[in-house]
Amino acid sequence: MATRFIFLSFCLLFSSTLTISNAKIFPTFPSSRITPEKLSSLISNSKDSQGLYKTKYHTQILDHFNYNPQSYQTFQQRYLINDTHWGGSKNNAPIFVYTGNEGDIEWFAQNTGFMYDVAPKFKALLVFIEHRYYGKSIPYGGNKEIAYKNASTTGYLSSTQALADYASLIIDLKKNLTATDSPVVVFGGSYGGMLAAWFRLKYPHVAIGALASSAPILNFDNIVSPYSFSNIITQDFRSVSENCYKVIKGSWKQIEETAKKPGGLEKLQKAFRISIDDPKTGNDVFAKLYGAASVYYNYSGTAKCFDLNGDSDPHGLSEWGWQACTEMIMLTGGDNKDSIFEESEEDYDARARYCKEAYGVDPRPNWITTEFGGHKIGLVLKRFASNIIFFNGLRDPWSGGGVLKNISKTVLALVEKEGAHHVDLRFSTKEDPQWLKDVRRREVEIVGKWISQYFQDLAQ
Amino acid sequence: MATRFIFLSFCLLFSSTLTISNAKIFPTFPSSRITPEKLSSLISNSKDSQGLYKTKYHTQILDHFNYNPQSYQTFQQRYLINDTHWGGSKNNAPIFVYTGNEGDIEWFAQNTGFMYDVAPKFKALLVFIEHRYYGKSIPYGGNKEIAYKNASTTGYLSSTQALADYASLIIDLKKNLTATDSPVVVFGGSYGGMLAAWFRLKYPHVAIGALASSAPILNFDNIVSPYSFSNIITQDFRSVSENCYKVIKGSWKQIEETAKKPGGLEKLQKAFRISIDDPKTGNDVFAKLYGAASVYYNYSGTAKCFDLNGDSDPHGLSEWGWQACTEMIMLTGGDNKDSIFEESEEDYDARARYCKEAYGVDPRPNWITTEFGGHKIGLVLKRFASNIIFFNGLRDPWSGGGVLKNISKTVLALVEKEGAHHVDLRFSTKEDPQWLKDVRRREVEIVGKWISQYFQDLAQ
Repeated sequence: MATRFIFLSFCLLFSSTLTISNAKIFPTFPSSRITPEKLSSLISNSKDSQGLYKTKYHTQILDHFNYNPQSYQTFQQRYLINDTHWGGSKNNAPIFVYTGNEGDIEWFAQNTGFMYDVAPKFKALLVFIEHRYYGKSIPYGGNKEIAYKNASTTGYLSSTQALADYASLIIDLKKNLTATDSPVVVFGGSYGGMLAAWFRLKYPHVAIGALASSAPILNFDNIVSPYSFSNIITQDFRSVSENCYKVIKGSWKQIEETAKKPGGLEKLQKAFRISIDDPKTGNDVFAKLYGAASVYYNYSGTAKCFDLNGDSDPHGLSEWGWQACTEMIMLTGGDNKDSIFEESEEDYDARARYCKEAYGVDPRPNWITTEFGGHKIGLVLKRFASNIIFFNGLRDPWSGGGVLKNISKTVLALVEKEGAHHVDLRFSTKEDPQWLKDVRRREVEIVGKWISQYFQDLAQ
Repeated sequence: MATRFIFLSFCLLFSSTLTISNAKIFPTFPSSRITPEKLSSLISNSKDSQGLYKTKYHTQILDHFNYNPQSYQTFQQRYLINDTHWGGSKNNAPIFVYTGNEGDIEWFAQNTGFMYDVAPKFKALLVFIEHRYYGKSIPYGGNKEIAYKNASTTGYLSSTQALADYASLIIDLKKNLTATDSPVVVFGGSYGGMLAAWFRLKYPHVAIGALASSAPILNFDNIVSPYSFSNIITQDFRSVSENCYKVIKGSWKQIEETAKKPGGLEKLQKAFRISIDDPKTGNDVFAKLYGAASVYYNYSGTAKCFDLNGDSDPHGLSEWGWQACTEMIMLTGGDNKDSIFEESEEDYDARARYCKEAYGVDPRPNWITTEFGGHKIGLVLKRFASNIIFFNGLRDPWSGGGVLKNISKTVLALVEKEGAHHVDLRFSTKEDPQWLKDVRRREVEIVGKWISQYFQDLAQ
């Protein structure tokens, strides 16, 4: 138990596991490390957000798929828009849409500089749509107390509803802009990348193509091994330093022993917090651990440590936790004997028990593959679909669940050895390595082809 | 008002408009002319059903898309299965699935002889899945009193839920048969044809192709004119007999005048019932009207006249009426001045008012095109999707909303001047005209290609 706590605290530094107390069962994405509340405060202090977008709201229906009275309820869905470079509806200029993931959409807008960087070239309108139940897009009049109260009110938080939200919003927005013939390309990273890929598959009449960055759409239903996630993390460490790997691997026993002692858990917590404030001050095993993590994950720089209970809302319902307890059953918890973490088996039953207890729901572990596929994806999409880019960086533990091979001439995999989690979508910088520049250039080329072909077809 | 009654009664003979009293607002399909109750009695007396299938049930979830407690309810979904000619799972022999429409699935099995006719050639397993809320596939423990009680309980009757039902059932069935690599082809006519086409579009990982017969997927959201429906009926009559057309067109005034007189409505009803019992005994305008209808629609031969109120369940909720009041907003009510019917405008507002009053729901007129597309379908599907056959017979008034042109090399339109509503799916007979034999031969060829290509891809 104590080890699990520490494990989770540590893992957060790797931004690979959500800090739900008491179980190593909710792998999440780096992008959700920061709570919406913290994001808001960060964003309001950020100079970058100035002029990046205007905020709008769309009246969205609560339940697209049913017709009982409660399904007709509406809520205000937030989206951000930037028309600085848009060529306008008369020219059918493109619309680039970010399919928001699990968090405040402002954060994704600010961290998806790629869209800003390429907007002038394409004369594109930029739109970032917030995912329902996150940020300010809260059903029940924006009242989080109600929205997260229990399974009855949180029940409408699902990926299929989110995709239908995006379709409805985009169609409505295009009508309002009299831009019905403007091609839409969707972009997303991580869970947002999964949504972008699925959106192209399910709504080809709304989006002509999708750039799905670091989208682990195969991390379901045993399509890929539950060991792949920690195998990649392990490999990352070993490739940098075999000694580092050994330090960390050897530390678990020491952590466990410390945690068992009276006051040991508090000691560990304190140690890790101190090391976060100044990783160089420590000289013990724990400081070394933190140091290793810092080297490995050179993330946005705004990352903070969660509290160990990991609950960001007053009811103990975390939104991603809900999703991970219902449909996003991404089993990444296996550690084999060489793992940098302690050897362990994926424990689906533990997750199911936890979900029942915490949220009152039973997971539907087969739903995602039922709805979106995944098994033998090459066989299926070779003769179906088009215009999807799957980018994956092999340093990213989520790449194990990514599409890593070209499927057809237009369903393409861009794979980079040195790449991290949706690094291609970030603002470009002078320090970007050549391979990253090349990836982005390829992406621009491919998206450009989709748009050219669309205009050719439209003219026929 | 009175005219509307008669109009509806008359139109039923054309199997083109549902007999909901008080409004000409619910176009329906021939296949739903017979109530489930009547079907059951017909089927139990039918020699044809013997040996055609075995009846099975699948435990289906009430709501695939949400996670509130009520969504976890289950019901027993009926499906029919015939393995007489199946080549078995070891050979990955194909599975042909009929995506059931609005009615008792036994009726569709018995009237989709095409699948039986071609099963030996393909060594195919045949499966006919019943649509939720129809036949014996009733939620709430099979209790129709509850299922049709009000919008809260009927609210889960939707096309997206039905499609997800089919996906879940097929995946589960294939697992149980250890036939996960057997290719699935879906078949459907009319609303079932729409479901088949949409199923291929939304679940390409479950079905490798779809034969969508007489599927008016463009009869939504003003993609095609609301006048197309009656224009085709008018043309049908004129092509056979200009005089017949004139008799009918001239009759509306006379009907209206008769109906206005005291006892006139009863007189008309009586007249039509008599004429139905023996159309040749009448010699007045009404008898001629019936005669014209009988000549035109040489349908299954089991058609009976509905009562004029058209309610087939004790609560006045007709299942298709519900669907037509929520999402299946197929506007076919326009009649121009040359129409065989009285000149009239499509009246969406009247439908909306009726729906609110009768079912307590507001229609969502844009939902079908939001979810499934339809606008500029050629542009969209030219670069997306594959393996769909759209068959349409131009005598069928629903063909106005069909896909009538090839979209790509594998999204094909088969169009026949002389064809009626999903006539290709019927059992073959010696009397079949050559064009019908040719259509079926083409369909067999195309489906054969899909399956061959699938096996080639699978072997790679």
